[in-house]
Amino acid sequence: MDLITFAIVLGLVAVLYGIITSRQVLGAPAGNEKMQDIAAAIQEGAKAYLGRQYTAIAIVGVLVAVVLFLTLGTLSTVAFLIGAILSGVAGFVGMNISVRANVRTAEAARTSLQGGLTLAFRSGAITGMLVAGLGLLSIAGIFWYLTGPAGLAPNARPIVDALTALAFGASLISIFARLGGGIFTKAADVGADLVGKVEAGIPEDDPRNPAVIADNVGDNVGDCAGMAADLFETYVVTIGLTMVSIALLVKAPTADLLTLMSVPLLVGGVCIVASIIGTYFVRLGSKASIMGALYKGFWVTVILSVFFIYGVFQYAFQDLNAVIGGAGFLQPATDTLTTEAALGTAARDGAEFTALDLFWCMMIGLAVTGLLVWITEYYTGTNFRPVRSIAKASETGHGTNVIQGLAISLESTALPTLVIVVAVVATYQLAGIIGVAFAATALLALAGMVVALDAYGPVTDNAGGIAEMAGLDDSVRERTDALDAVGNTTKAVTKGYAIGSAALAALVLFGAYTTDLKEFFPDVVVDFSLSNPFVIVGLLLGALLPYLFGAFGMTAVGRAAGSVVEDVREQFRSNPGIMEGTSRPNYARTVDIVTRAAIKEMIIPSLLPVLSPIAVYFIITAVAGQGQGFASLGAMLLGVIVSGLFVAISMTSGGGAWDNAKKYIEDGHHGGKGSEAHKAAVTGDTVGDPYKDTAGPAVNPMIKITNIVALLLLAVLASQG
Amino acid sequence: MDLITFAIVLGLVAVLYGIITSRQVLGAPAGNEKMQDIAAAIQEGAKAYLGRQYTAIAIVGVLVAVVLFLTLGTLSTVAFLIGAILSGVAGFVGMNISVRANVRTAEAARTSLQGGLTLAFRSGAITGMLVAGLGLLSIAGIFWYLTGPAGLAPNARPIVDALTALAFGASLISIFARLGGGIFTKAADVGADLVGKVEAGIPEDDPRNPAVIADNVGDNVGDCAGMAADLFETYVVTIGLTMVSIALLVKAPTADLLTLMSVPLLVGGVCIVASIIGTYFVRLGSKASIMGALYKGFWVTVILSVFFIYGVFQYAFQDLNAVIGGAGFLQPATDTLTTEAALGTAARDGAEFTALDLFWCMMIGLAVTGLLVWITEYYTGTNFRPVRSIAKASETGHGTNVIQGLAISLESTALPTLVIVVAVVATYQLAGIIGVAFAATALLALAGMVVALDAYGPVTDNAGGIAEMAGLDDSVRERTDALDAVGNTTKAVTKGYAIGSAALAALVLFGAYTTDLKEFFPDVVVDFSLSNPFVIVGLLLGALLPYLFGAFGMTAVGRAAGSVVEDVREQFRSNPGIMEGTSRPNYARTVDIVTRAAIKEMIIPSLLPVLSPIAVYFIITAVAGQGQGFASLGAMLLGVIVSGLFVAISMTSGGGAWDNAKKYIEDGHHGGKGSEAHKAAVTGDTVGDPYKDTAGPAVNPMIKITNIVALLLLAVLASQG
Repeated sequence: MDLITFAIVLGLVAVLYGIITSRQVLGAPAGNEKMQDIAAAIQEGAKAYLGRQYTAIAIVGVLVAVVLFLTLGTLSTVAFLIGAILSGVAGFVGMNISVRANVRTAEAARTSLQGGLTLAFRSGAITGMLVAGLGLLSIAGIFWYLTGPAGLAPNARPIVDALTALAFGASLISIFARLGGGIFTKAADVGADLVGKVEAGIPEDDPRNPAVIADNVGDNVGDCAGMAADLFETYVVTIGLTMVSIALLVKAPTADLLTLMSVPLLVGGVCIVASIIGTYFVRLGSKASIMGALYKGFWVTVILSVFFIYGVFQYAFQDLNAVIGGAGFLQPATDTLTTEAALGTAARDGAEFTALDLFWCMMIGLAVTGLLVWITEYYTGTNFRPVRSIAKASETGHGTNVIQGLAISLESTALPTLVIVVAVVATYQLAGIIGVAFAATALLALAGMVVALDAYGPVTDNAGGIAEMAGLDDSVRERTDALDAVGNTTKAVTKGYAIGSAALAALVLFGAYTTDLKEFFPDVVVDFSLSNPFVIVGLLLGALLPYLFGAFGMTAVGRAAGSVVEDVREQFRSNPGIMEGTSRPNYARTVDIVTRAAIKEMIIPSLLPVLSPIAVYFIITAVAGQGQGFASLGAMLLGVIVSGLFVAISMTSGGGAWDNAKKYIEDGHHGGKGSEAHKAAVTGDTVGDPYKDTAGPAVNPMIKITNIVALLLLAVLASQG
Repeated sequence: MDLITFAIVLGLVAVLYGIITSRQVLGAPAGNEKMQDIAAAIQEGAKAYLGRQYTAIAIVGVLVAVVLFLTLGTLSTVAFLIGAILSGVAGFVGMNISVRANVRTAEAARTSLQGGLTLAFRSGAITGMLVAGLGLLSIAGIFWYLTGPAGLAPNARPIVDALTALAFGASLISIFARLGGGIFTKAADVGADLVGKVEAGIPEDDPRNPAVIADNVGDNVGDCAGMAADLFETYVVTIGLTMVSIALLVKAPTADLLTLMSVPLLVGGVCIVASIIGTYFVRLGSKASIMGALYKGFWVTVILSVFFIYGVFQYAFQDLNAVIGGAGFLQPATDTLTTEAALGTAARDGAEFTALDLFWCMMIGLAVTGLLVWITEYYTGTNFRPVRSIAKASETGHGTNVIQGLAISLESTALPTLVIVVAVVATYQLAGIIGVAFAATALLALAGMVVALDAYGPVTDNAGGIAEMAGLDDSVRERTDALDAVGNTTKAVTKGYAIGSAALAALVLFGAYTTDLKEFFPDVVVDFSLSNPFVIVGLLLGALLPYLFGAFGMTAVGRAAGSVVEDVREQFRSNPGIMEGTSRPNYARTVDIVTRAAIKEMIIPSLLPVLSPIAVYFIITAVAGQGQGFASLGAMLLGVIVSGLFVAISMTSGGGAWDNAKKYIEDGHHGGKGSEAHKAAVTGDTVGDPYKDTAGPAVNPMIKITNIVALLLLAVLASQG
């Protein structure tokens, strides 16, 4: 079987796993009538939200598709639509499973912790395999069609254009889904807490709180559907752009090129298999450690992946030590003369590499994944200094809790940055820019497993809510709480992982930008040197984007939460029976209000990364000429990652740490629930919510979309010129 | 009179102003015995802290001086010592005035608001003029000696080395002073609040609180001495490096070069005169607006500066429209070939400029100052949306206060960035890199006035404390509170101003780095293109520094505040008479504890920017060769500003906004003092404290020191090679 077909088959295996496992999950008992009622309300709300969100996105998407059709033609438009639609499908299906698995997890948790864990994790694994499988199928399908039936060479321009457009489709959906879902979930969460816990003095997930269903809907549309769209986008962009960079950079015979471009696809495929096998190892050991169970599955996947990837290389290449071709270091027009010399004496010039070099780059990619997971657990887990220092600081009040949380936020960026820096240097020394791209691909190849770990979180969160609302035995809530606490860490892991891959991919994306530039505009000299002030200007403007975007996200949550508070107050006032427990609150009205607010709030910030690159290019070109316009735009792409990496990691790790510091106190430390320290920790948790679930994670798709818009802008400018 | 002598005379005028005004301030009545007692305790504490801080710094300074002496010789060592000592003097004298003006301001505020304002502002103006005057004298003195008695050409290497070493001395002191002072002031402040307001339930500045003197000492050693050292450093680095970049870049006859290098000095001189005149316009109008009074002084200074600077240009240049010389765009080795083409069609190539162009660049620099002041006031003043939105968010609790504050923090970076970007583009189009440098010089030339506005803050803060402790009439406290609220904005202004100048200076510093590189290592090819992965690595590592540094600063405050809390608790426990008001707390012991803690905590973080550039160079050189080592190091210098600009502005503006949101509520909005909203606002204020007074402002000297260490590293490597 040829490599591409093999990859497609493995992509179908992922979808098949999804279908089979869905039947298993849906076949589990769905609890008593009250539980099913509650679950139905959540399902209804989630479906209503997602329907409206996708309608809003569709309007933007169709407008963009028309622009693409008029400027870049049919192929790009079709690829864009495939990316957009599959991104939507991954989120939609994942959410649909999630809103059904929640009640079944609650039911299973009535009997045992293992039962709850298995159900919740299986449900997450469905989303994970769909994300990876659909991502792989979309890229491999397009590549197969264009190199096969359409008869194009693997490095033909239409293939580059189609893969870029596919990535654009996925990114455009994902920024809306991440941000819209993020605003929804945190507006509902913060709003429900403020008016319920703080004002009315009723516990979390109390059925008397009209915002309680909205809160549970939020877990599904934000942490599940939004996250799935985000990771789908990351997967498609990383693997697609790796292939694009091979096409643009490697000089080799067509057959070799086809092999080289197919390897990332096949690696994606075998890692899906490794992930599926890994899911069956998620079992509690004798110590009943939930994190340990998840780790078992994760490490089995990693170790299998090592062997599988080695197998792929042996299958694809005759001789792992043969030199593959002249590739490597990107040479934009300005440094043609000096690049080789510039690489210094001890450096490899990256112009040649062997398959074995690429294999080692992939191993580095896997190592980065492992390290990022470990670092994130250190910063957000309850067993380590960071979370405990925040819990300790809560003893002296709200202020010191927040100060220590912010300190941990800032600090948590250091180790991931060092890991990424070392990985860039090592892979670049091994195989130039292609080496960096292969590392990023290996990182993303584990997406199935990583998403599974993440998507499991909202299911357990919901299960806890349902247990509470349905008045199940306290032991059920204890079990779901234990499952949920681990979810805080796994959710932070995915976000750190996504942004880490973005940092690695940044070099690859910038490489694609400079190569396109050289191809489309051979006569325009562009100076990307740091001594060009327009490069500094681009870096500064790029660095501003995550800040401004973060500000929008945080403000949007505050505003939308405010409208929740007002609605709930109004319901309590006009219907006193609610607080007495004699009449049912109007859950749907609150869901509807959050829906409207989230959709309204997501539009402007989502357009920021789409329009900024275009604005920067045209303004700087008008002031200082096209060469400087391209220089500023290119620098902006790196500015956005240089600043976005830190903004995103600090927000997601910090937010996770705050959340778990609260959980740590609730476990009986520093005075436990109800103590002054607990109140302070609740403040920290509230602050961390929009940090970790709205603003922080949306930075990743924002970075990607800025880059892809720039690539498309080049293509459009070239087609018009 | 030649230009340099003229500048020296004007520098002496500043010192003379300082002496005369000091006598006026010290001649004012110093209040009753109780007030004098309290003031004496503050004086003693401040002196003790500064003594120990300078002793600790001296040890580091002597070590560095020995290294400099062994590697770069006598001249650099002497210049380093001059910079270090004068930086210390500016802080020390400023603080000495400040701790005497506080009690006199309290006394003056007994009669009228104008009286208090005049005294406090005069005291601030002394510090301001000393900072600008000593800064100017140090640069002009060295330049005069080397071009005069020593007979060197203005662009001779020793002059470049001496000015760099002078800047290094000033920076090294300032990072310790800013950070040590910042930790002291906020540890005392947060500690006093936690244990006093929160635990013991006694008001702020209650004499029964053993930490109350430490809190007041902190205002002087942090906000006055630390700030003065920081601005002294900024002044010396900016004006010194402007001269260095002229020496390195402009090709012109010696006489022209001498003129061109002297102009920044003379501009500094005339702006001191404008600032001195401006101070006399700080008077309350009919509306008794304090901010209005300060603005009057500021705008008079700006307008006079326009005319004075024009006068300087007419005095220095025969024909403002004559082309000055071949200068301009920095051409590091790698883009020699392409630079001119790279600048595009519409751009000036920056190779030539006229004196008039430079004049306009200076006007742009003044405009940037005005805009930064206005933007900072918008984000931190009680009359505008940002502060009011935080105050409003306090109604729904601690969490929403902090969320909104963080949103404002992030948002507040946008307008300053845009202003800086526009200024870079405009000045670069006018006169290349020299144009950018001249804009930065004009910005800094107003330092006398800006520091005056800032240094006035701690005096009024202290005056309020003294009024409270001495049991003066409530009307006095009301007046000092009104003065203090404006101080929050003016303090934020200085920090935004310093970091804004750092962003402009970044290009100039990077230019000096690349030019030095070319001169010292003509054979090493360095690729500063963004497509070089080692450039990305440098950018990421540079961007990490402000985050890590911020984390250290925040944690240090938390830890030091913790030791204050423990000490105060212990005092309350062992001496119950304190709370009953029958026995005096041991103020000195608390001061001593904070002193030890602050000095211990400042060392490690301060060494971070000193050692990081050295580590990055050697590690990357070992891995990938010297060319890449220099590339990563250079990129690090820009990474640290690209990220530091945002970290610093978000922290200082956000912190100021939180503080004033609390003040706005205390003025009777949203329930006023004692309401739930007020409690939430106190939390925000506590969070903002280390943000705005410790971590944020110390980013500015951190950026400078990273840059200067890199320049010195080049010189040392060259001298060893």
